[in-house]
Amino acid sequence: MARVSQAHLDARRQQILDGAAACFSRNGFHATSMQDVLQEVGLSAGAVYRYFRSKDEMIAAIVNGVLETLGASFAERSRDPMPLRPAETVMQVVRRMWEMLNERGITPTLIIQVWAETTRNPELAARLREGLGVVVDGWSAIVRKYQELGWLDPGVPPSSVARTMVATVQGFILQQPMLGESGRLDLGQLDVLEAGLRALTGMSPPGAEEASGAGGTER
Amino acid sequence: MARVSQAHLDARRQQILDGAAACFSRNGFHATSMQDVLQEVGLSAGAVYRYFRSKDEMIAAIVNGVLETLGASFAERSRDPMPLRPAETVMQVVRRMWEMLNERGITPTLIIQVWAETTRNPELAARLREGLGVVVDGWSAIVRKYQELGWLDPGVPPSSVARTMVATVQGFILQQPMLGESGRLDLGQLDVLEAGLRALTGMSPPGAEEASGAGGTER
Repeated sequence: MARVSQAHLDARRQQILDGAAACFSRNGFHATSMQDVLQEVGLSAGAVYRYFRSKDEMIAAIVNGVLETLGASFAERSRDPMPLRPAETVMQVVRRMWEMLNERGITPTLIIQVWAETTRNPELAARLREGLGVVVDGWSAIVRKYQELGWLDPGVPPSSVARTMVATVQGFILQQPMLGESGRLDLGQLDVLEAGLRALTGMSPPGAEEASGAGGTER
Repeated sequence: MARVSQAHLDARRQQILDGAAACFSRNGFHATSMQDVLQEVGLSAGAVYRYFRSKDEMIAAIVNGVLETLGASFAERSRDPMPLRPAETVMQVVRRMWEMLNERGITPTLIIQVWAETTRNPELAARLREGLGVVVDGWSAIVRKYQELGWLDPGVPPSSVARTMVATVQGFILQQPMLGESGRLDLGQLDVLEAGLRALTGMSPPGAEEASGAGGTER
Protein backbone atom coordinates (compact mmCIF):
# COMPACT_ATOMS: atom_id res chain seq x y z
CA MET A 1 0.00 0.00 0.00
CA ALA A 2 1.39 3.39 -0.98
CA ARG A 3 2.20 5.79 1.81
CA VAL A 4 -0.28 8.61 1.95
CA SER A 5 0.62 11.80 3.75
CA GLN A 6 -1.54 13.13 6.58
CA ALA A 7 -1.94 16.37 4.61
CA HIS A 8 -3.38 14.39 1.72
CA LEU A 9 -5.80 12.54 4.01
CA ASP A 10 -6.90 15.80 5.62
CA ALA A 11 -7.43 17.47 2.25
CA ARG A 12 -9.48 14.51 1.01
CA ARG A 13 -11.56 14.55 4.19
CA GLN A 14 -12.22 18.28 3.78
CA GLN A 15 -13.07 17.78 0.09
CA ILE A 16 -15.79 15.32 1.11
CA LEU A 17 -17.15 17.64 3.79
CA ASP A 18 -17.23 20.58 1.36
CA GLY A 19 -19.15 18.46 -1.14
CA ALA A 20 -21.56 17.32 1.55
CA ALA A 21 -22.11 20.92 2.67
CA ALA A 22 -22.87 21.91 -0.93
CA CYS A 23 -25.42 19.07 -1.30
CA PHE A 24 -27.08 19.74 2.07
CA SER A 25 -27.30 23.48 1.30
CA ARG A 26 -28.78 22.88 -2.15
CA ASN A 27 -31.29 20.12 -1.48
CA GLY A 28 -31.64 19.90 2.27
CA PHE A 29 -30.12 17.38 4.66
CA HIS A 30 -32.99 14.88 4.41
CA ALA A 31 -33.34 15.00 0.63
CA THR A 32 -29.60 14.36 0.14
CA SER A 33 -28.42 10.75 -0.19
CA MET A 34 -24.90 9.39 0.30
CA GLN A 35 -24.99 8.75 -3.48
CA ASP A 36 -25.54 12.49 -4.07
CA VAL A 37 -22.46 13.28 -2.00
CA LEU A 38 -20.38 10.68 -3.92
CA GLN A 39 -21.41 12.27 -7.22
CA GLU A 40 -20.72 15.78 -5.93
CA VAL A 41 -17.16 14.97 -4.86
CA GLY A 42 -16.48 12.52 -7.71
CA LEU A 43 -15.15 9.78 -5.42
CA SER A 44 -16.01 6.12 -5.05
CA ALA A 45 -18.11 4.83 -2.16
CA GLY A 46 -15.01 3.06 -0.81
CA ALA A 47 -13.00 6.29 -0.76
CA VAL A 48 -15.76 8.20 1.04
CA TYR A 49 -16.79 5.45 3.51
CA ARG A 50 -13.18 5.32 4.69
CA TYR A 51 -13.85 8.74 6.25
CA PHE A 52 -17.59 8.86 6.88
CA ARG A 53 -20.09 6.03 7.14
CA SER A 54 -23.23 8.19 7.13
CA LYS A 55 -24.68 11.65 6.55
CA ASP A 56 -24.95 11.97 10.33
CA GLU A 57 -21.19 11.52 10.65
CA MET A 58 -20.65 14.17 7.98
CA ILE A 59 -22.94 16.70 9.63
CA ALA A 60 -21.26 16.01 12.98
CA ALA A 61 -17.83 16.61 11.39
CA ILE A 62 -19.03 19.87 9.80
CA VAL A 63 -20.38 21.04 13.17
CA ASN A 64 -17.15 20.04 14.93
CA GLY A 65 -15.10 22.02 12.42
CA VAL A 66 -17.14 25.16 13.07
CA LEU A 67 -16.94 24.72 16.84
CA GLU A 68 -13.14 24.27 16.67
CA THR A 69 -12.74 27.55 14.80
CA LEU A 70 -15.00 29.26 17.31
CA GLY A 71 -13.01 27.83 20.21
CA ALA A 72 -9.74 29.08 18.64
CA SER A 73 -11.22 32.59 18.25
CA PHE A 74 -12.11 32.70 21.93
CA ALA A 75 -8.69 31.43 22.98
CA GLU A 76 -7.17 34.31 20.97
CA ARG A 77 -9.47 36.93 22.48
CA SER A 78 -8.89 35.66 26.01
CA ARG A 79 -5.14 36.25 25.52
CA ASP A 80 -5.81 39.98 24.95
CA PRO A 81 -4.42 41.63 28.09
CA MET A 82 -7.07 44.36 27.92
CA PRO A 83 -10.42 43.31 26.48
CA LEU A 84 -11.91 45.24 23.59
CA ARG A 85 -15.31 46.83 23.99
CA PRO A 86 -18.11 44.25 23.68
CA ALA A 87 -19.27 45.15 20.18
CA GLU A 88 -15.66 44.95 18.90
CA THR A 89 -15.03 41.60 20.58
CA VAL A 90 -18.24 40.12 19.20
CA MET A 91 -17.50 41.42 15.74
CA GLN A 92 -13.94 40.07 15.64
CA VAL A 93 -15.13 36.58 16.53
CA VAL A 94 -18.18 36.74 14.24
CA ARG A 95 -16.37 38.14 11.19
CA ARG A 96 -13.77 35.39 11.39
CA MET A 97 -16.48 32.78 11.78
CA TRP A 98 -18.60 34.06 8.88
CA GLU A 99 -15.55 34.14 6.58
CA MET A 100 -14.72 30.56 7.51
CA LEU A 101 -18.32 29.47 6.95
CA ASN A 102 -18.34 31.09 3.50
CA GLU A 103 -15.01 29.47 2.58
CA ARG A 104 -16.38 26.08 3.58
CA GLY A 105 -19.65 26.62 1.71
CA ILE A 106 -21.60 26.39 4.95
CA THR A 107 -24.63 28.49 4.05
CA PRO A 108 -27.32 30.01 6.30
CA THR A 109 -29.63 27.36 4.83
CA LEU A 110 -27.38 24.58 6.10
CA ILE A 111 -26.84 26.16 9.52
CA ILE A 112 -30.58 26.53 10.11
CA GLN A 113 -31.16 22.96 8.97
CA VAL A 114 -28.60 21.77 11.50
CA TRP A 115 -30.41 23.74 14.21
CA ALA A 116 -33.73 22.22 13.16
CA GLU A 117 -32.14 18.77 13.11
CA THR A 118 -31.23 19.10 16.80
CA THR A 119 -34.92 18.80 17.60
CA ARG A 120 -34.93 15.26 16.11
CA ASN A 121 -31.35 14.01 16.49
CA PRO A 122 -30.35 13.65 20.18
CA GLU A 123 -26.65 13.05 19.37
CA LEU A 124 -26.43 16.21 17.30
CA ALA A 125 -28.38 18.07 20.00
CA ALA A 126 -25.86 16.90 22.61
CA ARG A 127 -22.97 18.03 20.40
CA LEU A 128 -24.54 21.46 19.86
CA ARG A 129 -25.33 21.77 23.57
CA GLU A 130 -21.67 21.09 24.29
CA GLY A 131 -20.69 23.61 21.58
CA LEU A 132 -23.05 26.23 23.01
CA GLY A 133 -21.44 25.56 26.41
CA VAL A 134 -17.96 26.20 25.00
CA VAL A 135 -19.08 29.44 23.33
CA VAL A 136 -20.96 30.64 26.42
CA ASP A 137 -17.92 29.84 28.61
CA GLY A 138 -15.72 31.75 26.16
CA TRP A 139 -17.91 34.85 26.35
CA SER A 140 -18.37 34.46 30.10
CA ALA A 141 -14.60 34.75 30.65
CA ILE A 142 -14.64 38.02 28.68
CA VAL A 143 -17.74 39.25 30.56
CA ARG A 144 -15.95 38.61 33.88
CA LYS A 145 -13.12 40.87 32.65
CA TYR A 146 -15.70 43.58 31.92
CA GLN A 147 -17.01 43.16 35.44
CA GLU A 148 -13.51 43.36 36.97
CA LEU A 149 -12.91 46.55 34.99
CA GLY A 150 -16.17 48.03 36.28
CA TRP A 151 -17.69 48.23 32.76
CA LEU A 152 -20.54 45.92 33.68
CA ASP A 153 -22.54 45.26 36.85
CA PRO A 154 -20.61 42.60 38.82
CA GLY A 155 -23.87 41.18 40.19
CA VAL A 156 -25.06 39.82 36.83
CA PRO A 157 -24.33 36.13 36.16
CA PRO A 158 -21.70 36.26 33.35
CA SER A 159 -23.41 33.37 31.57
CA SER A 160 -26.64 35.40 31.26
CA VAL A 161 -24.80 38.16 29.43
CA ALA A 162 -22.87 35.58 27.39
CA ARG A 163 -26.02 33.76 26.30
CA THR A 164 -27.61 37.05 25.28
CA MET A 165 -24.57 37.96 23.15
CA VAL A 166 -24.55 34.52 21.53
CA ALA A 167 -28.28 34.80 20.87
CA THR A 168 -27.72 38.04 18.98
CA VAL A 169 -25.39 36.34 16.53
CA GLN A 170 -27.59 33.25 16.17
CA GLY A 171 -30.63 35.42 15.49
CA PHE A 172 -28.71 37.38 12.92
CA ILE A 173 -27.81 34.22 11.01
CA LEU A 174 -31.47 33.22 11.17
CA GLN A 175 -32.56 36.52 9.63
CA GLN A 176 -30.42 35.98 6.52
CA PRO A 177 -32.77 33.57 4.68
CA MET A 178 -35.78 35.62 5.83
CA LEU A 179 -34.14 38.58 4.07
CA GLY A 180 -33.50 36.48 0.97
CA GLU A 181 -29.82 35.82 1.75
CA SER A 182 -29.80 32.04 1.90
CA GLY A 183 -26.91 31.45 -0.50
CA ARG A 184 -24.07 32.71 1.64
CA LEU A 185 -23.53 34.86 4.71
CA ASP A 186 -23.45 38.50 3.61
CA LEU A 187 -20.50 40.08 5.42
CA GLY A 188 -22.02 43.51 4.74
CA GLN A 189 -24.89 42.53 7.04
CA LEU A 190 -22.41 42.44 9.91
CA ASP A 191 -22.24 46.26 9.77
CA VAL A 192 -25.91 46.26 10.82
CA LEU A 193 -25.13 43.99 13.77
CA GLU A 194 -22.08 46.04 14.71
CA ALA A 195 -24.05 49.32 14.69
CA GLY A 196 -26.82 47.70 16.73
CA LEU A 197 -24.49 46.20 19.32
CA ARG A 198 -22.48 49.40 19.66
CA ALA A 199 -25.62 51.45 20.14
CA LEU A 200 -27.13 49.07 22.71
CA THR A 201 -23.92 48.69 24.75
CA GLY A 202 -23.35 52.45 24.62
CA MET A 203 -26.87 53.40 25.76
CA SER A 204 -27.53 55.87 28.53
CA PRO A 205 -31.12 55.43 29.67
CA PRO A 206 -31.98 57.16 32.95
CA GLY A 207 -31.36 55.00 36.01
CA ALA A 208 -29.37 52.46 34.03
CA GLU A 209 -27.47 51.63 37.21
CA GLU A 210 -30.50 50.59 39.27
CA ALA A 211 -32.02 48.82 36.30
CA SER A 212 -28.84 46.90 35.74
CA GLY A 213 -28.56 46.16 39.44
CA ALA A 214 -32.12 44.85 39.59
CA GLY A 215 -31.49 42.56 36.65
CA GLY A 216 -28.31 41.36 38.23
CA THR A 217 -29.81 39.51 41.15
CA GLU A 218 -29.98 35.83 40.51
CA ARG A 219 -33.55 34.54 40.74
CA MET B 1 -78.31 24.30 6.71
CA ALA B 2 -78.12 25.24 10.38
CA ARG B 3 -76.81 28.67 11.21
CA VAL B 4 -73.35 28.45 12.66
CA SER B 5 -72.03 31.33 14.72
CA GLN B 6 -68.75 33.04 13.82
CA ALA B 7 -67.46 32.20 17.31
CA HIS B 8 -68.10 28.52 16.61
CA LEU B 9 -66.29 28.72 13.25
CA ASP B 10 -63.34 30.50 14.86
CA ALA B 11 -63.12 27.96 17.67
CA ARG B 12 -63.19 25.07 15.20
CA ARG B 13 -60.50 26.72 13.10
CA GLN B 14 -58.32 27.20 16.17
CA GLN B 15 -58.95 23.59 17.25
CA ILE B 16 -57.58 22.40 13.91
CA LEU B 17 -54.54 24.67 14.14
CA ASP B 18 -53.81 23.52 17.70
CA GLY B 19 -53.99 19.90 16.56
CA ALA B 20 -51.72 20.64 13.61
CA ALA B 21 -49.21 22.39 15.90
CA ALA B 22 -49.19 19.35 18.19
CA CYS B 23 -48.55 16.97 15.25
CA PHE B 24 -45.85 19.17 13.70
CA SER B 25 -44.12 19.56 17.09
CA ARG B 26 -44.22 15.82 17.78
CA ASN B 27 -43.25 14.36 14.42
CA GLY B 28 -41.94 17.21 12.36
CA PHE B 29 -43.67 19.15 9.60
CA HIS B 30 -42.57 16.84 6.79
CA ALA B 31 -43.37 13.57 8.56
CA THR B 32 -46.90 14.75 9.40
CA SER B 33 -49.71 13.96 6.95
CA MET B 34 -53.11 15.63 6.65
CA GLN B 35 -54.47 12.27 7.88
CA ASP B 36 -52.43 12.63 11.08
CA VAL B 37 -53.97 16.04 11.69
CA LEU B 38 -57.50 14.67 11.08
CA GLN B 39 -56.89 11.92 13.64
CA GLU B 40 -55.40 14.39 16.14
CA VAL B 41 -58.41 16.72 16.03
CA GLY B 42 -61.00 13.94 15.56
CA LEU B 43 -62.70 15.63 12.64
CA SER B 44 -63.62 14.43 9.16
CA ALA B 45 -61.64 15.43 6.10
CA GLY B 46 -64.61 17.49 4.92
CA ALA B 47 -64.73 19.46 8.18
CA VAL B 48 -61.00 20.21 8.07
CA TYR B 49 -60.71 20.95 4.33
CA ARG B 50 -63.43 23.58 4.75
CA TYR B 51 -60.76 25.59 6.62
CA PHE B 52 -57.42 24.37 5.28
CA ARG B 53 -56.61 22.55 2.07
CA SER B 54 -53.00 21.72 2.92
CA LYS B 55 -50.33 21.59 5.61
CA ASP B 56 -48.81 24.68 4.01
CA GLU B 57 -52.04 26.59 4.62
CA MET B 58 -52.03 25.43 8.23
CA ILE B 59 -48.45 26.49 8.85
CA ALA B 60 -49.14 29.85 7.18
CA ALA B 61 -52.17 30.34 9.48
CA ILE B 62 -50.11 29.44 12.57
CA VAL B 63 -47.43 31.94 11.53
CA ASN B 64 -50.05 34.63 10.84
CA GLY B 65 -51.56 34.12 14.29
CA VAL B 66 -48.18 34.63 15.96
CA LEU B 67 -47.44 37.73 13.87
CA GLU B 68 -50.85 39.24 14.71
CA THR B 69 -50.17 38.88 18.43
CA LEU B 70 -46.73 40.42 17.98
CA GLY B 71 -48.21 43.32 16.03
CA ALA B 72 -50.77 43.94 18.79
CA SER B 73 -48.00 43.96 21.42
CA PHE B 74 -46.11 46.64 19.51
CA ALA B 75 -49.24 48.73 19.01
CA GLU B 76 -49.71 48.65 22.79
CA ARG B 77 -46.11 49.60 23.54
CA SER B 78 -46.15 52.43 21.02
CA ARG B 79 -49.11 53.96 22.88
CA ASP B 80 -46.95 54.28 26.02
CA PRO B 81 -46.40 58.04 26.34
CA MET B 82 -42.93 57.47 27.87
CA PRO B 83 -41.06 54.40 26.63
CA LEU B 84 -39.80 51.89 29.14
CA ARG B 85 -36.10 51.09 29.25
CA PRO B 86 -35.12 48.74 26.42
CA ALA B 87 -34.79 45.56 28.46
CA GLU B 88 -38.25 46.16 29.99
CA THR B 89 -39.85 46.83 26.60
CA VAL B 90 -38.32 43.72 25.07
CA MET B 91 -39.35 41.60 28.02
CA GLN B 92 -42.97 42.81 28.00
CA VAL B 93 -43.37 41.92 24.34
CA VAL B 94 -41.48 38.63 24.65
CA ARG B 95 -43.23 37.37 27.80
CA ARG B 96 -46.61 37.96 26.20
CA MET B 97 -45.48 36.19 23.05
CA TRP B 98 -44.02 33.17 24.86
CA GLU B 99 -47.19 32.77 26.93
CA MET B 100 -49.29 32.84 23.77
CA LEU B 101 -47.00 30.33 22.06
CA ASN B 102 -47.25 27.96 25.03
CA GLU B 103 -51.06 28.31 25.12
CA ARG B 104 -51.24 27.44 21.44
CA GLY B 105 -48.84 24.50 21.80
CA ILE B 106 -46.35 26.19 19.47
CA THR B 107 -43.12 24.62 20.73
CA PRO B 108 -39.50 25.67 20.09
CA THR B 109 -39.29 22.55 17.91
CA LEU B 110 -42.08 23.83 15.69
CA ILE B 111 -40.75 27.40 15.54
CA ILE B 112 -37.30 26.23 14.44
CA GLN B 113 -38.86 23.93 11.85
CA VAL B 114 -40.77 26.88 10.44
CA TRP B 115 -37.54 28.86 10.23
CA ALA B 116 -35.81 25.96 8.46
CA GLU B 117 -38.80 25.63 6.13
CA THR B 118 -38.30 29.22 4.91
CA THR B 119 -35.13 28.03 3.17
CA ARG B 120 -37.25 25.73 0.95
CA ASN B 121 -40.69 27.37 0.80
CA PRO B 122 -40.60 30.78 -0.94
CA GLU B 123 -44.19 31.67 0.08
CA LEU B 124 -43.47 31.02 3.74
CA ALA B 125 -40.17 32.90 3.41
CA ALA B 126 -42.03 35.89 1.96
CA ARG B 127 -44.55 35.78 4.82
CA LEU B 128 -41.78 35.63 7.44
CA ARG B 129 -39.86 38.41 5.70
CA GLU B 130 -43.00 40.53 5.90
CA GLY B 131 -43.42 39.53 9.56
CA LEU B 132 -39.79 40.38 10.33
CA GLY B 133 -40.41 43.76 8.66
CA VAL B 134 -43.43 44.44 10.90
CA VAL B 135 -41.45 43.50 14.02
CA VAL B 136 -38.40 45.53 12.99
CA ASP B 137 -40.63 48.53 12.20
CA GLY B 138 -42.29 48.13 15.61
CA TRP B 139 -38.94 48.18 17.43
CA SER B 140 -37.61 50.95 15.17
CA ALA B 141 -40.43 53.27 16.30
CA ILE B 142 -39.43 52.63 19.92
CA VAL B 143 -35.72 53.09 19.11
CA ARG B 144 -36.52 56.47 17.55
CA LYS B 145 -38.16 57.48 20.85
CA TYR B 146 -34.94 56.48 22.67
CA GLN B 147 -32.99 58.64 20.24
CA GLU B 148 -35.35 61.62 20.75
CA LEU B 149 -34.92 61.25 24.51
CA GLY B 150 -31.12 61.18 24.13
CA TRP B 151 -30.82 57.63 25.50
CA LEU B 152 -29.30 56.34 22.29
CA ASP B 153 -27.01 57.81 19.63
CA PRO B 154 -29.28 59.56 17.08
CA GLY B 155 -26.85 58.71 14.28
CA VAL B 156 -27.52 54.95 14.40
CA PRO B 157 -30.09 53.64 11.90
CA PRO B 158 -33.04 52.60 14.11
CA SER B 159 -33.54 49.45 12.05
CA SER B 160 -29.99 48.25 12.92
CA VAL B 161 -30.76 48.46 16.62
CA ALA B 162 -34.19 46.92 16.04
CA ARG B 163 -32.77 43.96 14.10
CA THR B 164 -30.20 43.35 16.82
CA MET B 165 -32.91 43.32 19.51
CA VAL B 166 -35.06 40.95 17.45
CA ALA B 167 -32.03 38.72 16.84
CA THR B 168 -31.53 38.41 20.60
CA VAL B 169 -35.00 36.98 21.07
CA GLN B 170 -34.75 34.69 18.02
CA GLY B 171 -31.41 33.34 19.21
CA PHE B 172 -32.85 32.73 22.65
CA ILE B 173 -35.67 30.62 21.22
CA LEU B 174 -33.07 28.71 19.20
CA GLN B 175 -31.07 27.93 22.33
CA GLN B 176 -34.03 26.20 24.01
CA PRO B 177 -33.78 22.84 22.18
CA MET B 178 -29.97 22.97 22.44
CA LEU B 179 -30.46 23.21 26.20
CA GLY B 180 -32.93 20.32 26.14
CA GLU B 181 -36.06 22.50 26.31
CA SER B 182 -37.80 21.48 23.13
CA GLY B 183 -41.20 20.70 24.65
CA ARG B 184 -42.29 24.19 25.53
CA LEU B 185 -40.80 27.63 26.00
CA ASP B 186 -39.48 27.86 29.56
CA LEU B 187 -40.64 31.24 30.90
CA GLY B 188 -37.95 30.99 33.61
CA GLN B 189 -35.35 31.23 30.84
CA LEU B 190 -36.57 34.75 30.15
CA ASP B 191 -34.95 35.87 33.43
CA VAL B 192 -31.60 35.00 31.83
CA LEU B 193 -32.42 37.11 28.77
CA GLU B 194 -33.68 39.98 30.94
CA ALA B 195 -30.51 40.02 33.08
CA GLY B 196 -28.35 39.88 29.93
CA LEU B 197 -30.22 42.69 28.17
CA ARG B 198 -30.26 44.90 31.26
CA ALA B 199 -26.55 44.42 31.78
CA LEU B 200 -25.65 45.11 28.13
CA THR B 201 -27.88 48.19 27.81
CA GLY B 202 -26.58 49.49 31.15
CA MET B 203 -22.88 49.05 30.34
CA SER B 204 -20.32 51.77 30.87
CA PRO B 205 -17.20 50.84 28.88
CA PRO B 206 -14.71 53.70 28.51
CA GLY B 207 -15.36 55.89 25.51
CA ALA B 208 -18.81 54.43 24.99
CA GLU B 209 -19.85 57.71 23.37
CA GLU B 210 -17.26 57.64 20.57
CA ALA B 211 -17.74 53.93 20.07
CA SER B 212 -21.47 54.39 19.73
CA GLY B 213 -20.95 57.37 17.42
CA ALA B 214 -18.58 55.43 15.19
CA GLY B 215 -21.08 52.61 14.85
CA GLY B 216 -23.75 55.10 13.97
CA THR B 217 -22.45 56.15 10.61
CA GLU B 218 -24.22 54.33 7.85
CA ARG B 219 -21.81 52.50 5.60
